[in-house]
Amino acid sequence: MLIDAVKKELQRIVGVEHASFSKEALLCYAYDATNIRKMPDAVVFPKNAEEVSLILKMANAERFPVVPRGAGSGFTGGSVPVDGGVVLSTERMREIHSIDEANLTATVAPGVITWELQQEVEKRGLFYPPDPTSLNFSTIGGNIAENAGGPRAVKYGVTRDYVLGLEVVLPTGEIINTGVKTAKGVVGYDLTRLIVGSEGTLGVVTKAVLRLIPLPESTRTLLAVFPELADAASAVSGIIKARITPSTLEIVDSISIRCVEEYANVGLPKAGSFLIIEVDGTVEGTSKEADEVRRVCLENRASSVDEAVDKKEARNLWKARRAISASLFRIKPNKINEDVVVPRSEIPALVSGISGIAQRRGLLIACFGHAGDGNIHVNIMYDGKDAKESEVAHETVGEVFKLTLSLGGTISGEHGVGITKAPYLAMELGSDAISLMKRIKANFDPNGILNPGKVFAGGHSR
Amino acid sequence: MLIDAVKKELQRIVGVEHASFSKEALLCYAYDATNIRKMPDAVVFPKNAEEVSLILKMANAERFPVVPRGAGSGFTGGSVPVDGGVVLSTERMREIHSIDEANLTATVAPGVITWELQQEVEKRGLFYPPDPTSLNFSTIGGNIAENAGGPRAVKYGVTRDYVLGLEVVLPTGEIINTGVKTAKGVVGYDLTRLIVGSEGTLGVVTKAVLRLIPLPESTRTLLAVFPELADAASAVSGIIKARITPSTLEIVDSISIRCVEEYANVGLPKAGSFLIIEVDGTVEGTSKEADEVRRVCLENRASSVDEAVDKKEARNLWKARRAISASLFRIKPNKINEDVVVPRSEIPALVSGISGIAQRRGLLIACFGHAGDGNIHVNIMYDGKDAKESEVAHETVGEVFKLTLSLGGTISGEHGVGITKAPYLAMELGSDAISLMKRIKANFDPNGILNPGKVFAGGHSR
Repeated sequence: MLIDAVKKELQRIVGVEHASFSKEALLCYAYDATNIRKMPDAVVFPKNAEEVSLILKMANAERFPVVPRGAGSGFTGGSVPVDGGVVLSTERMREIHSIDEANLTATVAPGVITWELQQEVEKRGLFYPPDPTSLNFSTIGGNIAENAGGPRAVKYGVTRDYVLGLEVVLPTGEIINTGVKTAKGVVGYDLTRLIVGSEGTLGVVTKAVLRLIPLPESTRTLLAVFPELADAASAVSGIIKARITPSTLEIVDSISIRCVEEYANVGLPKAGSFLIIEVDGTVEGTSKEADEVRRVCLENRASSVDEAVDKKEARNLWKARRAISASLFRIKPNKINEDVVVPRSEIPALVSGISGIAQRRGLLIACFGHAGDGNIHVNIMYDGKDAKESEVAHETVGEVFKLTLSLGGTISGEHGVGITKAPYLAMELGSDAISLMKRIKANFDPNGILNPGKVFAGGHSR
Repeated sequence: MLIDAVKKELQRIVGVEHASFSKEALLCYAYDATNIRKMPDAVVFPKNAEEVSLILKMANAERFPVVPRGAGSGFTGGSVPVDGGVVLSTERMREIHSIDEANLTATVAPGVITWELQQEVEKRGLFYPPDPTSLNFSTIGGNIAENAGGPRAVKYGVTRDYVLGLEVVLPTGEIINTGVKTAKGVVGYDLTRLIVGSEGTLGVVTKAVLRLIPLPESTRTLLAVFPELADAASAVSGIIKARITPSTLEIVDSISIRCVEEYANVGLPKAGSFLIIEVDGTVEGTSKEADEVRRVCLENRASSVDEAVDKKEARNLWKARRAISASLFRIKPNKINEDVVVPRSEIPALVSGISGIAQRRGLLIACFGHAGDGNIHVNIMYDGKDAKESEVAHETVGEVFKLTLSLGGTISGEHGVGITKAPYLAMELGSDAISLMKRIKANFDPNGILNPGKVFAGGHSR
């Protein structure tokens, strides 16, 4: 609970109309895509670093939590105010400050929607590749906090690879600039990439200098259908072995195909699995690569390989792909969506292991995702009203993680740890590494006011 | 000075034959490419993380400095034992543990020579792009410590972009694993990239998992000659504006051309400037891009644009480019080699500003380097025996940095801070950022035993 003097001061800092305390307003900022709900005591909408700084300084003086929030589209509870306090929304920091075509950079405020930035730069023949599935509403600030990926990561990397420099407000209120505005820079420790992926626990990003690249002149989109998931997985290996780096290489299992077809009705064939494969580059280069991809798929028992004839067909295919996550609710009203990664050669072992777990546990588990980089979204479906099934579903998470780690993988490729994976942190990281990370956190945030209760289970609430 | 008991214990840890205390041996480990010399008290050659850990634990107990060292090819004194103590050489950790062709990764020991790794992966149709000029002798561990770049960074990025995970011995002796073996991973803070570029001050890397990509099927190498450096710089802008990303885009000024031609005699024309431009990709794609690059150069007053007809000609051209640094000693026996970066559109302003400084100061300053990413090597030539000239040369460094920062740049693109740039750190970084970095250092290394006296001027000797 915030005392009245604090509420008044918050209003003074951001303006009366940019601080909310009503139950109706607070409800909208109580949850993210995990659907975990915890009510904050206030939500504020600062417009710049100076206002963020004043809020954080007061938070240290008065010891209340501050939870930064972009669009709240995260899958691990990173923006959920678990200990109450103040939600700091970046909604009013929406400006694209500049797009520098000569130096291929964009300088943006954290509340800019990823898709909006992409549209702006593409108008100029430029490209900002990171494409989390939530890109139509997720923000650059949120993408930076979680180090968001997406289908194009297989060729273009993740958000981290496009952040050159940041303006960050430290938990103690100092405003610092990290990194550079140039393509290179190695002066001092890499605070930029320490902030990227730190899930809003080490600072609030108030400005970002992003790297852009030229927009590829041509993209070819193929849909390859396979009788079994194992065939699709072996086609993935074949494509990599042919030394092709597709710009996306997505795999979808039969459960997901059935659900999305019933839901979106886009004319997908009944099949064991399919791959969506995109190659991009010059017209000549993509033509050659598309032919090669087709050959590899057919060699691996593809029953068909179709190419989107135009942008509209390609868009429809992507609409279907993006609809998978939502369509799965046709099976069960609740799901646990994990984003494990294995070395891509281990995808068959992962998927067959998960199928074994599903059978043993009597659950439906749908797998789809970024086969090109081994990042598979594992969706454990359950009915939250069925206490037993809910318990079994949650127990299964640990099993999936154990399998993933035994295959040389990681428990999160792009969703982060947040609240939901915090209990599993020690499965992947050794105690010395965790202790080092906690010391870094304490260094940045001695009073533990910034996004408490995240990443480290139990250890970092105030 | 080390006491005899410490020397005995060092011998016990690494084996008698892998610890040296003789003056002759120590002399070889007293300097790097800056030619700054400080004698260590011992040099040891551990063979694995366990031995490194024992050495560091003893260093904490007995409070002596440990200075990690790859090939000693650094340009900022990063591996010079300024406070004496023990040089920890990675020479015996030379194994390429594995090259995983299915998952496009290599796992290597820190003492592996960059060039050797590149040869091994290229045999398999794979590619490890980072190419510091020292790549024939520099090591992967040194490249990681300095976040080394090179000509190909304009398209492929720097060492940081190819490090997936590390085995690191912390200054206090704990052996931790950071990052992942997979293409993606966001679990916990990004310790991997905090270690990359930390100049051997936060830990000793004992193993690295590196990302590989497919080897491009074709590379085209062009040499474009211009009457004035300004023309070459405007061709650089034109190439970027044409949305081409060359794999290298190197600029050389007239002083450097003259020196390297006198030195290496490779038939370079007398000219105001030249560009070496490489494009790589598919045969069809590079053919188109090479034509476009040629067109842009001719539009920008190139007097000639020649293409290397075969690999041998291309190699000769690169030999000349790599010889520039050494050939400059024809002008003066000493030089200060700075690697500033500016937004690439500011290269003309940087170079003309430097030319003004050179005239005012009565010095010869040669500029060449990576125009594609704005990373220009500024070589201030002087005679160390001439006290006055030496003083003026060193004073000039601050002026060059001031100019660079005024153009939105950074004082180091790939050499790091080490000893030589430490006094200038506060020109680029704010005091809050520096204080945060120092707290991180103290966190990792409470007794200040690992590579003391680097990065932070005065502050971090024991």
